Amino acid sequence: MIQSPSIETRIIKKVTQETFSNEEDFLAVEEPLEIGISYTENGKRVRKNISVTMRTPSSDEELALGFLFTEGILKTYEQVKRVLSSELDPNKVTVELAESEVPQLQTSERNFYTTSSCGVCGKASIDAIRTTSLFASSEDSISVSRETLFEISQKLKNEQQVFESTGGLHASSLFDLNGNFLMLREDVGRHNALDKLIGAAFKNAGLPIHHSILLLSGRASFELIQKAHMAGIRIVAAIGAPSSLAAQLAEECNMTLVGFLGKEKFNIYTGSDRISEI
Amino acid sequence: MIQSPSIETRIIKKVTQETFSNEEDFLAVEEPLEIGISYTENGKRVRKNISVTMRTPSSDEELALGFLFTEGILKTYEQVKRVLSSELDPNKVTVELAESEVPQLQTSERNFYTTSSCGVCGKASIDAIRTTSLFASSEDSISVSRETLFEISQKLKNEQQVFESTGGLHASSLFDLNGNFLMLREDVGRHNALDKLIGAAFKNAGLPIHHSILLLSGRASFELIQKAHMAGIRIVAAIGAPSSLAAQLAEECNMTLVGFLGKEKFNIYTGSDRISEI
Repeated sequence: MIQSPSIETRIIKKVTQETFSNEEDFLAVEEPLEIGISYTENGKRVRKNISVTMRTPSSDEELALGFLFTEGILKTYEQVKRVLSSELDPNKVTVELAESEVPQLQTSERNFYTTSSCGVCGKASIDAIRTTSLFASSEDSISVSRETLFEISQKLKNEQQVFESTGGLHASSLFDLNGNFLMLREDVGRHNALDKLIGAAFKNAGLPIHHSILLLSGRASFELIQKAHMAGIRIVAAIGAPSSLAAQLAEECNMTLVGFLGKEKFNIYTGSDRISEI
Repeated sequence: MIQSPSIETRIIKKVTQETFSNEEDFLAVEEPLEIGISYTENGKRVRKNISVTMRTPSSDEELALGFLFTEGILKTYEQVKRVLSSELDPNKVTVELAESEVPQLQTSERNFYTTSSCGVCGKASIDAIRTTSLFASSEDSISVSRETLFEISQKLKNEQQVFESTGGLHASSLFDLNGNFLMLREDVGRHNALDKLIGAAFKNAGLPIHHSILLLSGRASFELIQKAHMAGIRIVAAIGAPSSLAAQLAEECNMTLVGFLGKEKFNIYTGSDRISEI
């Protein structure tokens, strides 16, 4: 395995019909990057933060340049004096504009839209989440069997009919601890599918969602774990891979996180005590 | 096929080794939703826009409620008087707070982060993109063969080595019109992978990217097509499905959009004249 800032090694439990073993696994790193620009205004240098994006470290300079170009803030590379990053704060990059260049932020016809997140630093945000969730991670004694997890991956396929016709939708679904299907919401955006599901529970006095399994049709990002924690969810299973920060947050929230769920195997990233071998 | 606001029907070309036929296909609908709240301030009702998200229509009320809850803006359903939506503007929803409820927007410890987008209305934004791209869609005579497209789907697999180890990264890659591999960037966020790739071209005087194929490892959303158009890209192929708005924008930009690219078949959503049967 090549060392890379894009990959994090983690000891996880690999589960099959026969085994329940500790193994080394590789997770895609997810960390926030703050992208800013600096330029001269009234004779002094000012820095303006433009965006924070959850990204995989590597090519951060290209990411900042590409983002500013595709947003229409930069037009040619001549506008750029240099790109500054700091070893002290690897999650921050500043594009320094050439002298006399003033960014056209106001005149841009295009808008940014907001999506839920964390803030500037992954660690700071994880702390912030823990204090803002109404359903703090108290002790619980819920558990789910290995067999139930195998089963729900197949049940999701049956329920996800819109996905079958378009191939283009993510699903968030809830199952009870015995694997009975409860509800499903779909969307092109995975965070929207989960917000729809949590919104339905919110409206119908169904929060906190303590005694259910949240099953995600795709990958598990930081943002999804954060939303699940806000709703009091204790067990999250994903058909796809979790990111490094998703696993980290799940651990801090005392949440069980399962990834790569299939009908004969899965990985447990955190909270394996809630999954019984029987 | 059930009629649903989540699904759009489109006539596309299905391509295999032998055939090149028009068929009906189903796309996941992607449209912007503006989420706002209204409340009483100094004796009068005010509306504040909180977020615009690219979503699949259906369960919009739940989406708004779930978003406001997971963002910590709403805490209990008693705070909500009703949720208003309009048939005239189905891409806008307003959560009306109960009398005397004032949202705690300032005191929230959590932040929103921005990601690139469009603006409030899909149509308006499509127009806005067309005017802001430096590389307007002039006529061109570039083309790529069916066989080349089959080949690059396999070449991407070879190049995407980090993906193989984590299963958690999206890739954006460039191939020349003969199918030779040029470059690849990866990220947990598909928009970041594309920004990294475009940022590299921006830095190395490689814009506009007219004479290459952009190959995406996953689905093609509106946002990715928008970024590709900003960089002057004419041919986009995705291993996964495109959204309705991605296909619509590609058509308006005179871009070729291929989806579900595999080693023996693919779909052409727009711009089939650039793909030769030989």
